[in-house]
Amino acid sequence: MGLDTAVSKPHEALAALLSEDMGAVNALIEDRMASEHAPRIPEVTAHLVGAGGKRLRPMLTLAAARLCGYTGPYHVHLAATVEFIHTATLLHDDVVDESAQRRGRPTANLLWDNKSSVLVGDYLFSRSFQLMTETGNLDVLRILSNASATIAEGEVLQLTAATDLRTDEAIYLQVVRGKTAALFSAATEVGGVIAGADAAHIQALFDYGDALGIAFQIADDLLDYQGDSAQTGKNVGDDFRERKLTLPVIKAVAQATAEERDFWVRTIEKGRQEDADLDHALALMDKYGTLSATRQDALAWAEKAKASIGQLPDHDIRDLLIGIADYVVSRLN
Amino acid sequence: MGLDTAVSKPHEALAALLSEDMGAVNALIEDRMASEHAPRIPEVTAHLVGAGGKRLRPMLTLAAARLCGYTGPYHVHLAATVEFIHTATLLHDDVVDESAQRRGRPTANLLWDNKSSVLVGDYLFSRSFQLMTETGNLDVLRILSNASATIAEGEVLQLTAATDLRTDEAIYLQVVRGKTAALFSAATEVGGVIAGADAAHIQALFDYGDALGIAFQIADDLLDYQGDSAQTGKNVGDDFRERKLTLPVIKAVAQATAEERDFWVRTIEKGRQEDADLDHALALMDKYGTLSATRQDALAWAEKAKASIGQLPDHDIRDLLIGIADYVVSRLN
Repeated sequence: MGLDTAVSKPHEALAALLSEDMGAVNALIEDRMASEHAPRIPEVTAHLVGAGGKRLRPMLTLAAARLCGYTGPYHVHLAATVEFIHTATLLHDDVVDESAQRRGRPTANLLWDNKSSVLVGDYLFSRSFQLMTETGNLDVLRILSNASATIAEGEVLQLTAATDLRTDEAIYLQVVRGKTAALFSAATEVGGVIAGADAAHIQALFDYGDALGIAFQIADDLLDYQGDSAQTGKNVGDDFRERKLTLPVIKAVAQATAEERDFWVRTIEKGRQEDADLDHALALMDKYGTLSATRQDALAWAEKAKASIGQLPDHDIRDLLIGIADYVVSRLN
Repeated sequence: MGLDTAVSKPHEALAALLSEDMGAVNALIEDRMASEHAPRIPEVTAHLVGAGGKRLRPMLTLAAARLCGYTGPYHVHLAATVEFIHTATLLHDDVVDESAQRRGRPTANLLWDNKSSVLVGDYLFSRSFQLMTETGNLDVLRILSNASATIAEGEVLQLTAATDLRTDEAIYLQVVRGKTAALFSAATEVGGVIAGADAAHIQALFDYGDALGIAFQIADDLLDYQGDSAQTGKNVGDDFRERKLTLPVIKAVAQATAEERDFWVRTIEKGRQEDADLDHALALMDKYGTLSATRQDALAWAEKAKASIGQLPDHDIRDLLIGIADYVVSRLN
């Protein structure tokens, strides 16, 4: 291991620092996504895993474990566990959202069918539980099985909350904690737990993952309205068209006049949208400054993440984790 | 506990004998299917759990544990785990099969939507892992996470094998072991493991569950062609219409003339069916005696189940488990 200072993006620097560990994680993922009897399983999984993505979550587990001085083999199992849970969730999300694209490629539900996505997702969930069981550590089993339940609960909550104008910032935060932050915080927490870190450090790692995940999701929701579609790979206003209540709209609804509220009822709750509606929605967000308020929220969560990880001892990895907290909100200008 | 000899069906007698334990299982299921934040979860789960079913799988876990002298609390957790895995599987199966009815009621995917069925299924899977983790027993965690992976693998295999005429009896058995027998055998095995039974008794419990599950599924597949629809709640030939290759057809395909093979290619592989095709399919099964051969297979697996459980010490519960093996094939005449 050695810090490659020529790399400027912190997640790339972290990947370089942890490249040996990440190689072991990738080999384990490759090994466990196989299936003796059902070739459809590695086909579907390879399509998604092969598409890349930053592997941020498993890297967080490796980083947390190394930061706490772990020298055993099981951080690799835990990192692969986290990536399998994430991949299973993506497969099921794309079925639920009827998505056609993911990471710039057609989704598995489009290339194969919903059936394959549902069942291969179940397979990867099961594989993730096998992997975590192999660590023999009941604390990590408890943390990761709790995280899985929180993720599924958050997704179900989102089903009903997304198009309901009564959804306020507290409910939004619950959904975000479920669908995104729960896996981030479990990823960092189990890294500390497997390393036998003390309770205060484990709590700080959890808080870092929690705040980082929330910052990450708020940034994602904001970029949906003000991102550069060439960079994000999404069209501006996809969430509006899909009638997803996210923070910029929730803040506008909270301050809406009666007439504006009627607009949100029609476009989000009833889903009766016309061509000019997105522009009007953006004008209302501008009127109340909700995009910049949302940006402030994301930045505040990133600061919270940095303060939490700052409680750990001085270490190259700690500084890169601080850098990653800045990085996830750096796309917001 | 006390054996109610007035009850003639062995699973009802077992339910009576284990009624206190089953009460605890039902209370635990009720408690854990709740969700603080997402009321959709208990709604969907209650619809399925409330519809009843015989609760055969959790009862097998309780029975195995009691038969091996267990007096602790965790057989209840394991039985609830097994029922949650089963319920999650049913929710996902109904999405995959696009089913409209289950246990004589509309399916959850019909009453709510596929999204709810996928995500609530994921929630119940996660809940099942939380429950098994609470036992603190790494052996049962290993057995149940392996079983979950085998179930999902069996379901994926079935996706591709069901309409492929190359599917032979060996592949059929793999699918059946996955989609049905893996949970039966895990259910009985973990009962023995939690009770600290010796290796030979645990193996006998596993073998009993495995053979019972296979007998159960073969009987189910046979009844699809010769059952009384008033009793089974299914129409004769549903599997044929849904192009599912099951044992009675696999045996007929294996002996088919070239012309008969063309018929199976058209109706099963290509799915181009006409009204008279089911009658012709039944005539071909009759020609080769495949329904009675399938019945012989089911009876042989039931005998194997009885021989396996017969290796355990004399006990009321052991005798009822022997009775259950006879019972699952008793519908075949």
